[in-house]
Amino acid sequence: MKGLTGLRTLGRDELTHLITHASRLRDQIDAGAPSGPALAGRVMTNLFFEPSTRTRLSFDLAAQRLGAHVLTFDPSTSSTLKGESLRDSVLTVAAMGTDIMVVRHHEEGVPELVSGWTGLPVINAGDGTNEHPTQALLDAVTMLRHFGRIEGLRVGIVGDIAHSRVAGSLIHSLPTLGADLHLVAPQSWLPRQTSLPATTDLDSLLGDLDVVYLLRVQAERGAEAAADYVESFRLDTTRSSRLPEHAVVMHPGPMNRGVEISDEVADGPRSLVTEQVRNGVPTRMAVLAAVSGVVT
Amino acid sequence: MKGLTGLRTLGRDELTHLITHASRLRDQIDAGAPSGPALAGRVMTNLFFEPSTRTRLSFDLAAQRLGAHVLTFDPSTSSTLKGESLRDSVLTVAAMGTDIMVVRHHEEGVPELVSGWTGLPVINAGDGTNEHPTQALLDAVTMLRHFGRIEGLRVGIVGDIAHSRVAGSLIHSLPTLGADLHLVAPQSWLPRQTSLPATTDLDSLLGDLDVVYLLRVQAERGAEAAADYVESFRLDTTRSSRLPEHAVVMHPGPMNRGVEISDEVADGPRSLVTEQVRNGVPTRMAVLAAVSGVVT
Amino acid sequence: MKGLTGLRTLGRDELTHLITHASRLRDQIDAGAPSGPALAGRVMTNLFFEPSTRTRLSFDLAAQRLGAHVLTFDPSTSSTLKGESLRDSVLTVAAMGTDIMVVRHHEEGVPELVSGWTGLPVINAGDGTNEHPTQALLDAVTMLRHFGRIEGLRVGIVGDIAHSRVAGSLIHSLPTLGADLHLVAPQSWLPRQTSLPATTDLDSLLGDLDVVYLLRVQAERGAEAAADYVESFRLDTTRSSRLPEHAVVMHPGPMNRGVEISDEVADGPRSLVTEQVRNGVPTRMAVLAAVSGVVT
Repeated sequence: MKGLTGLRTLGRDELTHLITHASRLRDQIDAGAPSGPALAGRVMTNLFFEPSTRTRLSFDLAAQRLGAHVLTFDPSTSSTLKGESLRDSVLTVAAMGTDIMVVRHHEEGVPELVSGWTGLPVINAGDGTNEHPTQALLDAVTMLRHFGRIEGLRVGIVGDIAHSRVAGSLIHSLPTLGADLHLVAPQSWLPRQTSLPATTDLDSLLGDLDVVYLLRVQAERGAEAAADYVESFRLDTTRSSRLPEHAVVMHPGPMNRGVEISDEVADGPRSLVTEQVRNGVPTRMAVLAAVSGVVT
Repeated sequence: MKGLTGLRTLGRDELTHLITHASRLRDQIDAGAPSGPALAGRVMTNLFFEPSTRTRLSFDLAAQRLGAHVLTFDPSTSSTLKGESLRDSVLTVAAMGTDIMVVRHHEEGVPELVSGWTGLPVINAGDGTNEHPTQALLDAVTMLRHFGRIEGLRVGIVGDIAHSRVAGSLIHSLPTLGADLHLVAPQSWLPRQTSLPATTDLDSLLGDLDVVYLLRVQAERGAEAAADYVESFRLDTTRSSRLPEHAVVMHPGPMNRGVEISDEVADGPRSLVTEQVRNGVPTRMAVLAAVSGVVT
Repeated sequence: MKGLTGLRTLGRDELTHLITHASRLRDQIDAGAPSGPALAGRVMTNLFFEPSTRTRLSFDLAAQRLGAHVLTFDPSTSSTLKGESLRDSVLTVAAMGTDIMVVRHHEEGVPELVSGWTGLPVINAGDGTNEHPTQALLDAVTMLRHFGRIEGLRVGIVGDIAHSRVAGSLIHSLPTLGADLHLVAPQSWLPRQTSLPATTDLDSLLGDLDVVYLLRVQAERGAEAAADYVESFRLDTTRSSRLPEHAVVMHPGPMNRGVEISDEVADGPRSLVTEQVRNGVPTRMAVLAAVSGVVT
């Protein structure tokens, strides 16, 4: 695999290979079995033009577990890089000896640009409203481990789908893996064009879902929009009680408790939120191995 | 040992075991003998809700010397974590694969909370005005190495004892180890209730001390309080000359030169300040090993 | 070698040894051959009192490749260290277990001070307008690898030479290595006293140069000075076309595109800018090995 700028172009076999590998690595971590240093001597560089803590540290630990060296460029706090063009900064980082570049940027397409400029394997850690592929992969790992399959799962993504890069990557992977995906949001938060079933009525869909995947309501949407959203879309105990008994709740974090999810549901038995975080490191290990062409 | 949130509950044997182990590790470092990778594959996470440089880096190096992976969460600069509850942040960090959590927070009791939420071994790196146990342990290591014993040492703690977490941990450990502890401060800086001998008169005590342990005067106490303090409590050449010849001076750092200590004393032959820093890394190694149940 | 605070005192043999060693290490990195852990168990501390990203990360990776532990003190963001004297901060960092100290500071001579205070090997990563020795060494490595020799190369340094620590180190090393060095700048940016040939007329020199070494125009020189500078000193396609066919262009980065260099030249076939960055890590590895007394 030459990089991972998105999931749109991956077929079912490639996706399945990544998530089953990730799941095996998760088992190894749980068993306390140290990962072999498959990436010993290689250098992974975190290039985060948008602040991040969770995703950056998850990649950091994934690389450490594989024996790689980690460099962390944080252009958001780097005055040196501010006076420089994006391309010059990227070429500098690459020339320093980077083997794999992990890129987050507030604009769509920057990981593709970085890949073109450097010729290096690039892993997209989130670009604008486009994709966040490792998040969707770890979500798929979480579903696979919980249900034993993804094929046929009825998944409802709820929230600001049009502006969510997490939703972007879920939409480009879960149907390929055989899931039955539904988009649920206020009209203005639904994508303009989609071949997927879409609805503004969460309540009518609840009884048919295996997975409710809640997106974070971004603060920049405003307090009024959030208040309206709470009324019709917040997953609280009442709504949760209408789900099938076996249904689960997922969220990419960080959660806005009280907005898209209530405390009771966030901490309740249906919540797979902690499992999602737990699968983040092995998923990123599997992706790092795949783009490096090594076997772990 | 299930964690180290404070020294209050540790008995003499436990304290003695930790400080003698730390002292042995210090000898190994001085001899250039590499530590075995006793914590290989394990993950120590620094979770510092209050800025710190010294303590954080001391834990960082201690973990590296034992072969552990280190993750550093700095919520004080993390925008991601700001929109999240403390508990969600902590559970996220834990789920990422953390084996040992090092926590500093401006409120008392947060390390205990983190321990309860996560079930992980937690090491308190300073919580409000409560405890800073690894500082007191490294101080005990420093005394032990200098005097060959702690039993019977006459130690005067001088400064804002009521608001000092360093003093908190010293008070909960040095008497247990057999030291003869005296509290010295202006009335308002002495703890309200204590079974230890306390005095506002440093000068009358000087001739009887083996160790003068100076606390940092915090800037938030104000310039006026500091000026009054200097008059009666600053350890300068005159006061230092009244100490027994063998007496030593300690300070947890960073020193406010000219306030609680004069330049001459800070840099003089009685000062063990550099020794204290030097014992920080092996002390934290001993604690990391103890809470991990490994032998080094 | 007891440290590297500058190149002024190094003879031809010492310089040659460092740059040929660095060039060999570069070959090993290119071949994917892992460096032996020559510095296993040792601690390199980055002590950057002036913000930096490139140089700091280049040292970071160099140390990691040699198996050393890395500590990063960033006093520019450390509140703890702000209340402390420079000397106390440095002694604290040293006592924590540092074996090699890498120091950047906005004032001349601080690396020498640190060396005196601590007795440790200190590597100057840039001090005021004095020296930036590892930059000049990596530049020499780049010339050696491109031309196969440094002896006899005609090198023109162009820019604010009087205030550039990069120029300082180039002036103290390239002539020693046999290069024929020319200083080119507006009168006020030329050093007051120098035994080297100096000129304000770049155009008349172009046809005689093997290397044009462009310095960054600092923003603090003002927009007017920059505009004047562009007129007579910017290396653009026109000026570049007057260079001998084999001549190359170098720049320590980050480039001010449009000011001292045009886009066409920065990205053109004469540019060795990426090669310079690439040689940074092996050069710092060679210096780290030299000041540690180890062979790699």
